[in-house]
Amino acid sequence: MIDFSLPPELADLRERTAAFVRDEVIPQEPYMDEHDGLPQDRLDALRARARAAGLYAPHVPREWGGLGLGMREMAVVFEQAGRSLLGPVALNCAAPDEGNMHLLHVVATEAQKERYLRPLVEGTIRSCFSMTEPHPGAGSDPALLRTRADKRGDRWVINGDKWYISGAGGAAFTICMALTGERLDGRAGATMFLVDAGNPGYRVIRQIPSLDAGGAGGHCEVEFRDCEVGEDAVLGEVGQGFAYAQVRLAPARLTHCMRWLGVAQRAHEIAVDYANGRESFGKPLAQHQMVQQLIADSAMELHAARLMIWHAAWVIDGGGQARQETSMAKTYVSEAVGRVVDRALQICGSHGVSTDLPLAMFYRNVRPFRIYDGPSEVHRMVIAQRILRDAARAREAAPAASEAIAGAIG
Amino acid sequence: MIDFSLPPELADLRERTAAFVRDEVIPQEPYMDEHDGLPQDRLDALRARARAAGLYAPHVPREWGGLGLGMREMAVVFEQAGRSLLGPVALNCAAPDEGNMHLLHVVATEAQKERYLRPLVEGTIRSCFSMTEPHPGAGSDPALLRTRADKRGDRWVINGDKWYISGAGGAAFTICMALTGERLDGRAGATMFLVDAGNPGYRVIRQIPSLDAGGAGGHCEVEFRDCEVGEDAVLGEVGQGFAYAQVRLAPARLTHCMRWLGVAQRAHEIAVDYANGRESFGKPLAQHQMVQQLIADSAMELHAARLMIWHAAWVIDGGGQARQETSMAKTYVSEAVGRVVDRALQICGSHGVSTDLPLAMFYRNVRPFRIYDGPSEVHRMVIAQRILRDAARAREAAPAASEAIAGAIG
Amino acid sequence: MIDFSLPPELADLRERTAAFVRDEVIPQEPYMDEHDGLPQDRLDALRARARAAGLYAPHVPREWGGLGLGMREMAVVFEQAGRSLLGPVALNCAAPDEGNMHLLHVVATEAQKERYLRPLVEGTIRSCFSMTEPHPGAGSDPALLRTRADKRGDRWVINGDKWYISGAGGAAFTICMALTGERLDGRAGATMFLVDAGNPGYRVIRQIPSLDAGGAGGHCEVEFRDCEVGEDAVLGEVGQGFAYAQVRLAPARLTHCMRWLGVAQRAHEIAVDYANGRESFGKPLAQHQMVQQLIADSAMELHAARLMIWHAAWVIDGGGQARQETSMAKTYVSEAVGRVVDRALQICGSHGVSTDLPLAMFYRNVRPFRIYDGPSEVHRMVIAQRILRDAARAREAAPAASEAIAGAIG
Amino acid sequence: MIDFSLPPELADLRERTAAFVRDEVIPQEPYMDEHDGLPQDRLDALRARARAAGLYAPHVPREWGGLGLGMREMAVVFEQAGRSLLGPVALNCAAPDEGNMHLLHVVATEAQKERYLRPLVEGTIRSCFSMTEPHPGAGSDPALLRTRADKRGDRWVINGDKWYISGAGGAAFTICMALTGERLDGRAGATMFLVDAGNPGYRVIRQIPSLDAGGAGGHCEVEFRDCEVGEDAVLGEVGQGFAYAQVRLAPARLTHCMRWLGVAQRAHEIAVDYANGRESFGKPLAQHQMVQQLIADSAMELHAARLMIWHAAWVIDGGGQARQETSMAKTYVSEAVGRVVDRALQICGSHGVSTDLPLAMFYRNVRPFRIYDGPSEVHRMVIAQRILRDAARAREAAPAASEAIAGAIG
Repeated sequence: MIDFSLPPELADLRERTAAFVRDEVIPQEPYMDEHDGLPQDRLDALRARARAAGLYAPHVPREWGGLGLGMREMAVVFEQAGRSLLGPVALNCAAPDEGNMHLLHVVATEAQKERYLRPLVEGTIRSCFSMTEPHPGAGSDPALLRTRADKRGDRWVINGDKWYISGAGGAAFTICMALTGERLDGRAGATMFLVDAGNPGYRVIRQIPSLDAGGAGGHCEVEFRDCEVGEDAVLGEVGQGFAYAQVRLAPARLTHCMRWLGVAQRAHEIAVDYANGRESFGKPLAQHQMVQQLIADSAMELHAARLMIWHAAWVIDGGGQARQETSMAKTYVSEAVGRVVDRALQICGSHGVSTDLPLAMFYRNVRPFRIYDGPSEVHRMVIAQRILRDAARAREAAPAASEAIAGAIG
Repeated sequence: MIDFSLPPELADLRERTAAFVRDEVIPQEPYMDEHDGLPQDRLDALRARARAAGLYAPHVPREWGGLGLGMREMAVVFEQAGRSLLGPVALNCAAPDEGNMHLLHVVATEAQKERYLRPLVEGTIRSCFSMTEPHPGAGSDPALLRTRADKRGDRWVINGDKWYISGAGGAAFTICMALTGERLDGRAGATMFLVDAGNPGYRVIRQIPSLDAGGAGGHCEVEFRDCEVGEDAVLGEVGQGFAYAQVRLAPARLTHCMRWLGVAQRAHEIAVDYANGRESFGKPLAQHQMVQQLIADSAMELHAARLMIWHAAWVIDGGGQARQETSMAKTYVSEAVGRVVDRALQICGSHGVSTDLPLAMFYRNVRPFRIYDGPSEVHRMVIAQRILRDAARAREAAPAASEAIAGAIG
Repeated sequence: MIDFSLPPELADLRERTAAFVRDEVIPQEPYMDEHDGLPQDRLDALRARARAAGLYAPHVPREWGGLGLGMREMAVVFEQAGRSLLGPVALNCAAPDEGNMHLLHVVATEAQKERYLRPLVEGTIRSCFSMTEPHPGAGSDPALLRTRADKRGDRWVINGDKWYISGAGGAAFTICMALTGERLDGRAGATMFLVDAGNPGYRVIRQIPSLDAGGAGGHCEVEFRDCEVGEDAVLGEVGQGFAYAQVRLAPARLTHCMRWLGVAQRAHEIAVDYANGRESFGKPLAQHQMVQQLIADSAMELHAARLMIWHAAWVIDGGGQARQETSMAKTYVSEAVGRVVDRALQICGSHGVSTDLPLAMFYRNVRPFRIYDGPSEVHRMVIAQRILRDAARAREAAPAASEAIAGAIG
Repeated sequence: MIDFSLPPELADLRERTAAFVRDEVIPQEPYMDEHDGLPQDRLDALRARARAAGLYAPHVPREWGGLGLGMREMAVVFEQAGRSLLGPVALNCAAPDEGNMHLLHVVATEAQKERYLRPLVEGTIRSCFSMTEPHPGAGSDPALLRTRADKRGDRWVINGDKWYISGAGGAAFTICMALTGERLDGRAGATMFLVDAGNPGYRVIRQIPSLDAGGAGGHCEVEFRDCEVGEDAVLGEVGQGFAYAQVRLAPARLTHCMRWLGVAQRAHEIAVDYANGRESFGKPLAQHQMVQQLIADSAMELHAARLMIWHAAWVIDGGGQARQETSMAKTYVSEAVGRVVDRALQICGSHGVSTDLPLAMFYRNVRPFRIYDGPSEVHRMVIAQRILRDAARAREAAPAASEAIAGAIG
């Protein structure tokens, strides 16, 4: 039955995560370099405290050392973690490692898990995911994938260019998506490969200066030039790359939403406190109706965003792929959190623009979310196409059920 | 735990309601006069079929002859009923009777229930709720209430003007809100009275021509002129009128949302079918991205609207007053359903504007919902004030927890 | 040089038009039936007063009895006329007659002018323009035109169905657009015909019930069945129908904007007066910031709308076709006036919804303007395509001028 | 008469400015440091070329070495200059110097002009304007001004804190706004002072790290501590500070709009070129309707923004203060250019987010314009208050003219 309650242990985990972020993580923010993250010693200390607090790696199965949370539980906890850009890093549930851990857990062999998943969970290494390509390759349209891997004997040889590979700087390995079939029909023919950073055929060319910082390791251009890997580098089955991409992308899209919701909620609360603490035109800012309107709009959108995330998480927890639900959640949430941060910044005026408050940083970092993980335009196209297709099928199946509109729509 | 599943019996009730509206109610729409509703014989026959189908009076407690649904169940069922403007009438869960039944059930004496609630449930009479007043009385600000009831001996004498009283034409009785205290401070001092339509001091002056039709009985101006009633006409306790108004308004606000969501969902589906069935500029309308965008936006907003309704209903089912939740739901839903109907009309072009499709009728009827039950502006003000007040209290209680913004906001 | 001043005689004409509408036209509004317009005797009297006031037929050349205004002058005067839905009727510059007079003046033979234009200007007859067709004919995509006229001897025989023909009820003649070429390539092959209402092959089937009223004569379905006309019924040259449609449509689109701007400006002023006159929550509505925001937004949009109309009118006055400018103006203005009327209605609350104020009537009547004369979606497509095409050409012509983005956009 | 034509010499100046920015200024952008601007040698060379091209100091009167343009001419030229953030710097018409030159020219004594205006025009020094104060001083509400200047003998002693003083780093002098009356009633009592950077009582504390860069000199915190100046430092008359602020602010607000319009227009053109050059989902990006919609919306808003700027400039050229017109233009333009840049960034996807294109830089720098020069909320309040006040007066003056709404609005 429809229910929005949190079991006591989840409510407790939520409160403890919130307290940890408030008391431990946010005080570290002044030491964060936006491009390099927290200095390693501070990060190590912070993660040690997270482990001690029983908050570390919430999304990782218990047998691999995490809290073993399902998607709904993650939704609740990640939002709290996301209140600081450092929070997910502290709990080791930040992108892109979080999505890679999930993918490795589902698809990798035991040997691959030991080699890649274990240190990733332990936080001794970082990773990245090499999928997006520069023009005219695979950007928002994955069908344009151009990176290829060819079998030569028992080796695979990868060639291609990737860009906007988040976290590539300093990553110990990357998961590379490459064409392996003769041709691309029906999305068949791609395979994922595990490529070590030390592979001589793999190179990080540059960090792309960007509106957002992209977290530790930045957004990078990387290249694969006659990059040789063995059979043991194949992740899952040959030819299943696009299917695995879905395994990774739908949940990863949703965990992004969860974390950004935390950022937006914090921005909103900063603005609320600011409005309570300031005067303008003879009365507290909080009593100006235009400010109230900004606050009310943000409250409603944060509420709707949270519910859409929870709903999509529930579908995934029930075994569904939740493509439509995650597309809707991603599109709505990415736009809503942008508006919420924008309103918060507006309320705080010049303080909002300055770096005295974290709002300007949030403003820059949240903007690209409307582009990566599928631009809003592509999601809207796909959302509508599914609805239109389902309606056409339903109408075919039960033409009589099409109400009284037949006359009008011919 | 967070859950969006429907128990099998609720899912079944939903399907049966949907089928009844599709197969029985919508075919009656051509016989509906927007101002007078369905002719009595057709309405009686339709309600008989609803009873036979086990769908009648879903919100009424079982001991009074209804289905005894809770708010979440009502949310599911009312949305289906709401797909036709006739649906709630057919199931006898239309405004304002639905809210009056709820109020009577909670507050009325047994004698009052027998006299007013029973025939209301049975559908042999209609009722109305006399609260809103013309300027300078109680409009969106209830504190401006001017209608007064004075005690003379054991009689109450009511004087005042009301307007936009929905359903007053033909109603057998009205519930009248009047000041009974010396003065209005802290919202004390109002009382509700049950006034029979035949009372010589009560008069329906006119139906106010309006953008929407207002259902059977229209939106009326009524007056109370030395309108005498006895002690037995007092609904609940003297002086508790404003508290009872909350008993009625918060759920009534939400049931309005449920019904309008059904209208908007149907409008959306009509537009989807239309887009599938038409060509323009060399390809189906459904393949035009601007049409896809309209459809995707409506799908996301309908989804968010539904979830916000469900959430508020869950709070009420749990015993909460849900003032904030119903304010947010009412504001968001009333605006979202307006946009959804507007988009549907746009997609259907001249067909949407014509009465060949019901969209123009929906367009007119849904607009006032952004005004009645509290205009969007008033709800936004109240939503923000609650947030600001709670934040101020939290900050007072735990100043140290106010993160790193103290310096900036001084 | 950039100039926004009105010459004294135009400023005077504007004031006199405004005064006439305020003092003569608006007082007639209570006598208007939305579907049939003003009773004939009242209309005749009103037009006589307009003639006496020197305000009649402002758009008609002086030699035909009008004021001979250019487009910019029309922009100024039509806005004032448009403040009442009756204003353009009173001045005989309402759609569709106004556009037909323009088309006849530009294209018709002298004999046709005497027969059709003269009585039209004099106001003794009305006319309509038969272009739009029901599915699968010419709706927003004129290329789908299906009505045909075939030459048989020296007669043309027209066959086809039209709908949403505004003013067809009671019109003395219609201008019919029909295919006359072998096929439709490059929009060649259509011809316009003058068809008398009494032609036995022409029939007004019904007035289509619609969200708006459509003015006197309504929106009609009409049919042409073996409708014979002679050579003298050809308007302009055979095969030039689509070119003439542009002659009519671009200015007609703009005069629509002018008139609707007047409606929106009046709605705005009504709301401003209302806000000044009402109290809510302890202070005048005018002091509520959310109301101020609605008023400020409307003021800015009315301002922008007026300037865009003036600019497009200036292009046409200079001999330009102003396709891009009228597309932009039409799209922006149709949406802006809709928002302005919506805000005015919201400010006036239940009064706005009731017919005590004209806002609900405006609300219904302004909505279809986002659909007719080209839906917003089609205009946006065309606006963008022109920009993209021009940019592509410019880049081809001067590749070196493409700034520093060549690297990025490959 | 309404006219949008540019005289040939202005059209020529516009083309030459456009060409200069395209050929000379934009190629310098790679050498620009966002915080420090262009290296001095490059800047000097660029300005020399601007002088040689007859484009230097377009707003400065001819007798002071500029082009002596009026506001409408400035609107045309500044837009072209604004296409690069370096353009206004190259032509020495960037904020805050441009506004200070205007103020000095109108208010300063001849001696002050020689000392401050001449080198400012020549470009050998920079300046700043010290008005905004940190909380609880004068932010968006100037009535909160707290900085004071007290007369001691023939000296003035200034004390106070200012912040967000753009360009303060490296400025040779600042214009300081300080209270000089006994109290602040009716905005009386403030005076402007010319303070040299070397004054021991004046100190630039820090550049405030900010979302935007703020141009050379940054946004600074400055303090005045027993800062002594002589009578000759008084700018204009004692007590006229608020009046002079209006002299500076209304035009400065508008020149900001002109420059940002140039940025937005360029962003739009970059996106158009990008859409023409890229493929996605099997066809050029330019053929995707959702992209077309973004382009059309930006085109319409740029058009409206330009017209509103031109209109306000025309009012100022005619001797008006144009408070309402500049408030409307500032509010609309600041929001429109933000949306245009946002759309351009969205169209260009990851390229838009990266610094390969200047869009991310534009995105950061344009955002604060919705806050400085009066936040949108304050302008909306003021715009509406003027309208409401004027309507109340008009109604008082001519109650009979209030149409037929008297009954409804009481």
